[in-house]
Amino acid sequence: MPKIKAIIAYDGSNYAGWQKQINALGIQEIFESALKKINHEPCEVTASGRTDAKVHAKGQVVHFKGREGISPLQYQKALNGILPLDIRVIECENADENFHARFSATGKRYRYVCSYNLLDPFQFKYKNILQGRLDTEKIKEAVPYFIGKHDFTSFSSNKIDPRKPREKTIYQIDFFEDGQDLYFDFIGTGFLRYQIRMMVGALLAVGRHKIEPAAIKNMLEAKDKHACPYNAPPQGLYLMEVYYGEQLFF
Amino acid sequence: MPKIKAIIAYDGSNYAGWQKQINALGIQEIFESALKKINHEPCEVTASGRTDAKVHAKGQVVHFKGREGISPLQYQKALNGILPLDIRVIECENADENFHARFSATGKRYRYVCSYNLLDPFQFKYKNILQGRLDTEKIKEAVPYFIGKHDFTSFSSNKIDPRKPREKTIYQIDFFEDGQDLYFDFIGTGFLRYQIRMMVGALLAVGRHKIEPAAIKNMLEAKDKHACPYNAPPQGLYLMEVYYGEQLFF
Repeated sequence: MPKIKAIIAYDGSNYAGWQKQINALGIQEIFESALKKINHEPCEVTASGRTDAKVHAKGQVVHFKGREGISPLQYQKALNGILPLDIRVIECENADENFHARFSATGKRYRYVCSYNLLDPFQFKYKNILQGRLDTEKIKEAVPYFIGKHDFTSFSSNKIDPRKPREKTIYQIDFFEDGQDLYFDFIGTGFLRYQIRMMVGALLAVGRHKIEPAAIKNMLEAKDKHACPYNAPPQGLYLMEVYYGEQLFF
Repeated sequence: MPKIKAIIAYDGSNYAGWQKQINALGIQEIFESALKKINHEPCEVTASGRTDAKVHAKGQVVHFKGREGISPLQYQKALNGILPLDIRVIECENADENFHARFSATGKRYRYVCSYNLLDPFQFKYKNILQGRLDTEKIKEAVPYFIGKHDFTSFSSNKIDPRKPREKTIYQIDFFEDGQDLYFDFIGTGFLRYQIRMMVGALLAVGRHKIEPAAIKNMLEAKDKHACPYNAPPQGLYLMEVYYGEQLFF
């Protein structure tokens, strides 16, 4: 059985996130339904990780068992013919039998997009629309507190498994403005549930002078899931890229 | 009673077009509901013209009766606070009492956007996604047939009122490519129902070598509503701008 690795992109607006769920439609379920039509049998699809409801992906990675005689390019074309237009397969390739979309991942890049543009009816599902200007100098002061290896319990959901490690490493955060838009790019080993949205929520609170930049440090040190009351909305978040193999981030 | 002119933009994806309808939700109805909350009485909103279901607008113009003591800027802010985020008021101003969004209009600019990009999950509601490359040189040959004053019966809907004039003038058509996208910009006195989508449909048929460029001329001369069997889908179409007063297009 060949193993196929696929890079996929999706507009998360209409879905309840990646994962299969009981009462809602996840992207995984749609993807598995499409794949079943090609493989003629049920087939599990494993992603690098979940994305939450309304969160988008430009470079999610999945793996699944392929059928002999169907090439990666044929999988790409067949899947794109069956999948709804808001879920696209960007690339398929044969993967090593040991490849695992989640366990082989060595890092991820996420982007969070905000905008001051209150008058664009086409962007509200794709950006966090901000009321009022932010003090971006204060945000730039706060960003470095997140870089490095930390216990991110204070920036995570109640729902995460208490047995799982909360220690994660953030290699790089780029914060920049382009016209009316603000971008936060995060590269790290991996992220806890809600971690990026809570980090961005805290940074936006800094930009609104609700908290001082140094408050980020205190929140991290608290290792308390109630320490950060901020959570930026999902529609600004994009899973951009998943890294495999040895990566040199510095 | 002051008269207010407003420039509005909307993502048409979720609406059954501009006009109020019996069995579906038009943008006009939503706009009038929002306005009623400000004026405290029912208030009709008149647009420069209809847009069809799923057609977008970046510069639709409307007029409505304002209440004394509410400034245009207050109307803009209050409407944007009440309207859903896919309908935005870009600008409001006091209009002359003789101003009429439809009857005072002297021209309109529409844009139709196509794309070869089959792999972008974020664009399918905003562009006509094309399967296969077009012969753009043939399209450039065909475009000039539409320019000037013509009876556009062959490029119009069955539904249009037979008593209304079918003669329209197209001042300018710009056809250009940008990356994987193709743009058709039309400036004219006004357009019949489905006219732009049918003209674009015919131009795409030329680009696919289904018809020769000169077939456009024959279709126009036929003045027969069955002459053009092509109709490009609505999601690529944008009402960009409505012109008032004397305009010099050449």
